[in-house]
Amino acid sequence: MKLPKFEDIIEAHDRIRAFIHRTPILRSQFFDELLSAEIYFKCENFQKVGAFKFRGATNALLQLDREQLNRGVATHSSGNHAQALALAAHKLGSKATIIMPRTSPKVKSDAVRGYGADIIFCEPTLEARETALNEFVARSGAEFVHPYNNFNIICGQGTAAKELIEDVGELDIVMAPVGGGGLLSGTSISTKSMLPQAKVIAGEPLGADDAARSLREGKIIPSVGPNTIADGLLTSLGELTFAIIKDNTDAILTAEESTIRLVMRYVWERMKIIIEPSSAVPIAAMLENKSLFEGKRVGIILSGGNVDLSKLPFE
Amino acid sequence: MKLPKFEDIIEAHDRIRAFIHRTPILRSQFFDELLSAEIYFKCENFQKVGAFKFRGATNALLQLDREQLNRGVATHSSGNHAQALALAAHKLGSKATIIMPRTSPKVKSDAVRGYGADIIFCEPTLEARETALNEFVARSGAEFVHPYNNFNIICGQGTAAKELIEDVGELDIVMAPVGGGGLLSGTSISTKSMLPQAKVIAGEPLGADDAARSLREGKIIPSVGPNTIADGLLTSLGELTFAIIKDNTDAILTAEESTIRLVMRYVWERMKIIIEPSSAVPIAAMLENKSLFEGKRVGIILSGGNVDLSKLPFE
Repeated sequence: MKLPKFEDIIEAHDRIRAFIHRTPILRSQFFDELLSAEIYFKCENFQKVGAFKFRGATNALLQLDREQLNRGVATHSSGNHAQALALAAHKLGSKATIIMPRTSPKVKSDAVRGYGADIIFCEPTLEARETALNEFVARSGAEFVHPYNNFNIICGQGTAAKELIEDVGELDIVMAPVGGGGLLSGTSISTKSMLPQAKVIAGEPLGADDAARSLREGKIIPSVGPNTIADGLLTSLGELTFAIIKDNTDAILTAEESTIRLVMRYVWERMKIIIEPSSAVPIAAMLENKSLFEGKRVGIILSGGNVDLSKLPFE
Repeated sequence: MKLPKFEDIIEAHDRIRAFIHRTPILRSQFFDELLSAEIYFKCENFQKVGAFKFRGATNALLQLDREQLNRGVATHSSGNHAQALALAAHKLGSKATIIMPRTSPKVKSDAVRGYGADIIFCEPTLEARETALNEFVARSGAEFVHPYNNFNIICGQGTAAKELIEDVGELDIVMAPVGGGGLLSGTSISTKSMLPQAKVIAGEPLGADDAARSLREGKIIPSVGPNTIADGLLTSLGELTFAIIKDNTDAILTAEESTIRLVMRYVWERMKIIIEPSSAVPIAAMLENKSLFEGKRVGIILSGGNVDLSKLPFE
């Protein structure tokens, strides 16, 4: 199994630079005071399609040749990777087909269609999803682009932390949320290479803490029945992301649902930016482990801003 | 009646610079395409207290002497000016007292108290408000700082457009919303001085179009029974703001409620930033008058981002 190196992330960055936004970094006096730290927020909620996922999808597609692009690309996802792959395919003259559970909210299938992709609905089970994907790939010759357990996807996601560190300089800690581990993998490679002294700490919902348990037990513990508002962090680690994370991540801290909700509201109210629940998780993990961060310079990747405005968790 | 000149705005800017955020300017491919224009959004929703009002309040208070600051400051407002005055007073070692209708939402009185101000509740009529204010000022010797019909307030508000033009350079049109006219007055003075060829165009809700009617009829038409979601734009013009606006504003365009709501949602969904309904009004006015803006470079001041997240207008 070939693991990405920082050089691969540098190449990915050069490859995708013209296609992505170099997202801004925001500060917040409120959060600095709340957490007694100096925090730098990397705003991937402002990235195209509203999430870092566009980096990886673009990097993956830019490595296909014209013939492959003509045959199209496919994935299973009901979240940001689906939108990212759809838009990246559209921009590169390809076509994405997305396998989605038929129970997906209409707002998500509408978004994917809005970026020009086709959708194949399946039953909401892992087996049905894989069967539908395999059938489609066999029939069409489309290239399957896994949401996170994919070398090129990981390299693309690692460009967010690279930009963060280029712009901010020295940091004591770099944080990202962890679901399938694509963002965390890329973040950890960039950070350990650019700032060898810095720690990489992930945030994970307590209600979906399979990555924290995997790190503890030294093997992949699958995510079974995850229960969290952070809908981008439901999936299990993959072979590739686990191999990277176990060597490059210093800790995975969990956060309770009530803290995730509270932090999400704070970000909306105080910073006036829209983040999705998954983006609140690293900040929530900081809040539940304040002493680890006091006096530190902390970079946090705000992973995305896609929420259904008709169904907000504020009371 | 002494009218502010651009030199007064320059002085105000030097005076308040250390106290305010120099807010960022954002672009949006979505809005550029929707409106066939090149739009520069000046993000005063990221300003302290979440609105441009902090500029004017700070400028007004910085011109009081120590004795006046010790006696305190007062105003009537249930909106952003109240929070702005409260925080500015707190930062300058003074104390603000805010006259508020007893029907004000708790979220607003809580916010004002959170910034350290006292509140005096009154009946929700113009007369009760003025009586309460006059009584308090007579009793305490506090300085009354009018929300908009005040020379120093206007100069402070004019610094937002000054920064916008300094950062962006040439613009064909500069837009702001209009309620009492403090922001529009300051914006129009800065724009006409820095970019003599540029037009100043205001946006106003059709359901509170007293400023548009005032400009048309050449005299102040009071705002009676305004009906709009844009709760920052309910008030009438003052003598001072009307005198400035009638000479420096090229047009006041109205927008319907449905357009204001639609635009507010677009900004949240596409730009991932939180604006209050009043901030959506100039963009909504553009959308209803597209032909006036096609191919133009347009600067828009997004006036604020204070919304009650428990009561959002999204369905």
